[in-house]
Amino acid sequence: MTNGATATDWTAQRMRSVFEKCKNWGRWGTEDEKGALNLITPAKRREGAACVVAGEAVSCARELPVQASVENPTPALHMMLVGGDDCLLPNVGLEATMDFVGVAFHGMATTHIDALCHVLVDQQMYNGFHASEVKSTGARRGSIMCAKEGITSRAVLLDVPRLRGQPWFDPGATIMVADLEAAEKAQNVRVTEGDVLLVSTGRDARRERVGPWNPFEQGLAGLHPECVEWIHARGVAVLGSDGVSDAFPGMGIPGWVLPIHQCALVAMGVHLLDNLRLDTLSEACARHGRWAFLFTVAPLRVERGTGSPVNPIAVL
Amino acid sequence: MTNGATATDWTAQRMRSVFEKCKNWGRWGTEDEKGALNLITPAKRREGAACVVAGEAVSCARELPVQASVENPTPALHMMLVGGDDCLLPNVGLEATMDFVGVAFHGMATTHIDALCHVLVDQQMYNGFHASEVKSTGARRGSIMCAKEGITSRAVLLDVPRLRGQPWFDPGATIMVADLEAAEKAQNVRVTEGDVLLVSTGRDARRERVGPWNPFEQGLAGLHPECVEWIHARGVAVLGSDGVSDAFPGMGIPGWVLPIHQCALVAMGVHLLDNLRLDTLSEACARHGRWAFLFTVAPLRVERGTGSPVNPIAVL
Amino acid sequence: MTNGATATDWTAQRMRSVFEKCKNWGRWGTEDEKGALNLITPAKRREGAACVVAGEAVSCARELPVQASVENPTPALHMMLVGGDDCLLPNVGLEATMDFVGVAFHGMATTHIDALCHVLVDQQMYNGFHASEVKSTGARRGSIMCAKEGITSRAVLLDVPRLRGQPWFDPGATIMVADLEAAEKAQNVRVTEGDVLLVSTGRDARRERVGPWNPFEQGLAGLHPECVEWIHARGVAVLGSDGVSDAFPGMGIPGWVLPIHQCALVAMGVHLLDNLRLDTLSEACARHGRWAFLFTVAPLRVERGTGSPVNPIAVL
Amino acid sequence: MTNGATATDWTAQRMRSVFEKCKNWGRWGTEDEKGALNLITPAKRREGAACVVAGEAVSCARELPVQASVENPTPALHMMLVGGDDCLLPNVGLEATMDFVGVAFHGMATTHIDALCHVLVDQQMYNGFHASEVKSTGARRGSIMCAKEGITSRAVLLDVPRLRGQPWFDPGATIMVADLEAAEKAQNVRVTEGDVLLVSTGRDARRERVGPWNPFEQGLAGLHPECVEWIHARGVAVLGSDGVSDAFPGMGIPGWVLPIHQCALVAMGVHLLDNLRLDTLSEACARHGRWAFLFTVAPLRVERGTGSPVNPIAVL
Repeated sequence: MTNGATATDWTAQRMRSVFEKCKNWGRWGTEDEKGALNLITPAKRREGAACVVAGEAVSCARELPVQASVENPTPALHMMLVGGDDCLLPNVGLEATMDFVGVAFHGMATTHIDALCHVLVDQQMYNGFHASEVKSTGARRGSIMCAKEGITSRAVLLDVPRLRGQPWFDPGATIMVADLEAAEKAQNVRVTEGDVLLVSTGRDARRERVGPWNPFEQGLAGLHPECVEWIHARGVAVLGSDGVSDAFPGMGIPGWVLPIHQCALVAMGVHLLDNLRLDTLSEACARHGRWAFLFTVAPLRVERGTGSPVNPIAVL
Repeated sequence: MTNGATATDWTAQRMRSVFEKCKNWGRWGTEDEKGALNLITPAKRREGAACVVAGEAVSCARELPVQASVENPTPALHMMLVGGDDCLLPNVGLEATMDFVGVAFHGMATTHIDALCHVLVDQQMYNGFHASEVKSTGARRGSIMCAKEGITSRAVLLDVPRLRGQPWFDPGATIMVADLEAAEKAQNVRVTEGDVLLVSTGRDARRERVGPWNPFEQGLAGLHPECVEWIHARGVAVLGSDGVSDAFPGMGIPGWVLPIHQCALVAMGVHLLDNLRLDTLSEACARHGRWAFLFTVAPLRVERGTGSPVNPIAVL
Repeated sequence: MTNGATATDWTAQRMRSVFEKCKNWGRWGTEDEKGALNLITPAKRREGAACVVAGEAVSCARELPVQASVENPTPALHMMLVGGDDCLLPNVGLEATMDFVGVAFHGMATTHIDALCHVLVDQQMYNGFHASEVKSTGARRGSIMCAKEGITSRAVLLDVPRLRGQPWFDPGATIMVADLEAAEKAQNVRVTEGDVLLVSTGRDARRERVGPWNPFEQGLAGLHPECVEWIHARGVAVLGSDGVSDAFPGMGIPGWVLPIHQCALVAMGVHLLDNLRLDTLSEACARHGRWAFLFTVAPLRVERGTGSPVNPIAVL
Repeated sequence: MTNGATATDWTAQRMRSVFEKCKNWGRWGTEDEKGALNLITPAKRREGAACVVAGEAVSCARELPVQASVENPTPALHMMLVGGDDCLLPNVGLEATMDFVGVAFHGMATTHIDALCHVLVDQQMYNGFHASEVKSTGARRGSIMCAKEGITSRAVLLDVPRLRGQPWFDPGATIMVADLEAAEKAQNVRVTEGDVLLVSTGRDARRERVGPWNPFEQGLAGLHPECVEWIHARGVAVLGSDGVSDAFPGMGIPGWVLPIHQCALVAMGVHLLDNLRLDTLSEACARHGRWAFLFTVAPLRVERGTGSPVNPIAVL
């Protein structure tokens, strides 16, 4: 979790330089809104499908958090419209039960995908679109509709706590490039262009043991900002974590409170998967001895949406 | 769309007999809540993955219907929480935009999956659980959580209108067993145990041409109740349609207003996918000359939910 | 419903001139956000209270429209959280039932009050505040919080259809100044400064007879734009109607699709009450032979809100 | 806050006896759903109106709590539909802003009225209606629609902390009958039949000083169960408090966790107003030297609703 670098090495100037170096703006055209999803080719989907050996499917989503908790100040709404006590639909003559589900999915508890418009730097989102494109009536640019056909690719899970023999990394801990590469080596897998990269911090195990905590107060483990260039170099298409990819609180770099979010979404056009559940997946990978698998994320087709709650499915 | 059978052949007594004959209650244990999802084996998932040849991914979902229309009296809610005009989050220091999405997904416009508890016959759901298990606070039995790991299988699309050279079937028209088998033959594909079966009625094409219509008033094309036994015999795991699988209005059989829903969900434990978008998929299948593909449905993990809005993804 | 004026007399230029003439901007200070509510003085409230003779209370609200209809494309949400079938609250040990209520209250079916920020003319709201004050995160200016202490005053109901011996005015019909003054005379009442003015068009009676209709397609009866100056001269504090005060469709004046809304909310700072139910009140007034009464509107205290659903109460 | 009685005097048996003694079931007919609202007569409304001397209006509601807090685990939803950045309505040609408001109003933070169906004792609500009348689709009996014409009456505020020279009563503290009568005497006012009784515990002052707290963990000041009979004897029509009328936690009487709620709503048919804001009102009363005033509560007309968020208005 540490290397020679110290916090003071990471100034706003350096962060800005990383941001500029990893910028994919214009790389797929000036009107492009898909960003690094462009790296997921038909060949990559075939490569993902070829990872299906055991035929085991594992969800990477948490239950929709309908109860308020310290990690979840805005609980999802799940409300019955018709229950079994009154289920004979008038006029239709069918016995049916129905419900409503709603959620403000951004935050620290709901498994969701961030659209590229979710974060901005200096009022600009990926590919230079201006903040004013995200109106009170929805996002005209950078919406989740760029992933409307779903995201299907090969994915790789790197479980650094497992590598270290720890159940989890403490809140605030940072994962370094060396950690990622050590995990690759230990797990005998390599992150390649177009992959979905999933990074476990052991958050599920910690939550199970100590209960939920408030990430804004107590923090979350995540990637050190030095990982940005590595992610860029490897051609990661989508990045996900059981936390929010960023270590929180971060390194106190002025203007860069969530540098992974800012560089992934804005500079690179890399979609993020937040609040995944990765413990079951990690166990399955360990059991099968394979850490690459077919991965599908299917956002709801919300026009002008800034993301979507999702239930990402890995098939090993 | 017709065979020798006349409507009068389909009495409540006959329908009940079909219902009883196709009952899977107890087949996978008295406590089972997965129903025909039990037919999706690891081997079946591998078979699905092996269908990925072109590496093309196609969504089978419609846009979340946020506008009211005659087919959609309860529009989904999509509301911005933070837009680009006020996106600097206080206390956090991040520029971010956020929204809320909510939906009463059952109905005739939202692409969704029905949990087994969604429909009851004589106050009973699949496997004999009583209506009172679906409380005002949610479903204790038969909830969508039985599919929490997602549904990944091989799927087959049968496009009968295409076979007939018609853009669509008119509302109320019924697809017979002979139609399904003719489509299989013409498309050189066979529905086998554990498959997801998708049946196109051309609804998308008709909506595009004549605009949305009120299914309760004008009807929907769908499967004739004689298809129930065929679906059972073939071991279909999940059934989906661009309509609601049922022809609507049906044959006027007392107590059997939506016989496919009633027999699939309640008797067989077959989950249903309603209001799919199948036109793009049909074109892709025709283009590739293959009508079987990998298929993933990833319901939101809504505890006690009666289903979920979904974005099912086919990969050819 | 007609006078010598023809539609062509009402040009955009004339409308603009009326708008400018009736402008209350700056009248109560450059920072004022209460507008004509300033006309409701303690004396006025006493005057209202003095109208209570019979002690009969009448609601002027419609039921919250939870069903979609042609007049109501965005139905309100009313969903149970806990019903009687599962009402023993865990941990608390109390038997309780609970629900959720939500509504996008603007529109043509929900009884609501418009905040002054609800309508703008040339990007400006009442008192010259700019449209950009109404952010994606809520209204910084002109919100309904200016009425947070409620609106209590004397109110006058003018029922022109009753005066004419008609059950209702047809959609699109316009009420003229002469109509208002004839009603005053017939009803032996006079609208004075600080009053709430309620104008009946008989919409309730028509809806009961012919069913709901789509106001955007078929129109609504309402006030002719010539009434603006009269309303201003009389010092009306709040204006309400069983329609939306405006006749719809209007006179086709370019830029002035809802001139009453535009002049009342923006120029005069007069709050509007839309979609009231006035038939019961009118009958009560006729029965008591008095058309002035105590009137209370109690908006929910929604910070930054553009209005509120309300249940205005008249006491005669 | 104390009298000779000790907690151990208050057994379940005694509580049950109070409950039975105060039962108004059948008093206004076997089908009655209004309960003690029947005590508000036209004469009572006139008496309320006659209390308007100064003409000052004061709201007794808190701001709708859209932020989660320890006292508010289910924040209200306030979301913009159209802001000033995109306010030119397509097709209509009007510049307008709009929002949505929704709330699960029961709880410890939203100012609301409890319908009589909100609480049950032994599966029965007021007048003996069974719990099963409150279905997953809404309340068939005891809904808030019994107050659809609003509640207009004379109200009395008793401010016991003020009497004691204390800014507030500590969480868990109980107000006794002697306290209420001492306040009546000190304030020179008397609670009479048909009145709305408001009881201040100083919660607002405490919240302002120490911040919000979790009532389930830290408690709330409220009425001692011995007050039930006094409330019944006085003919209180509606009871309200800045807390929830009950002291919390209570006296640990088995089955009677919120005895005031249980006796008021279920036995007496007395509606409750929870989480009022009473500090401003108390100051106004003190300033005017009068503690009786006109009071209006105007619930939203939610058919089958278990209550409503409200903004109760006092006029002195």
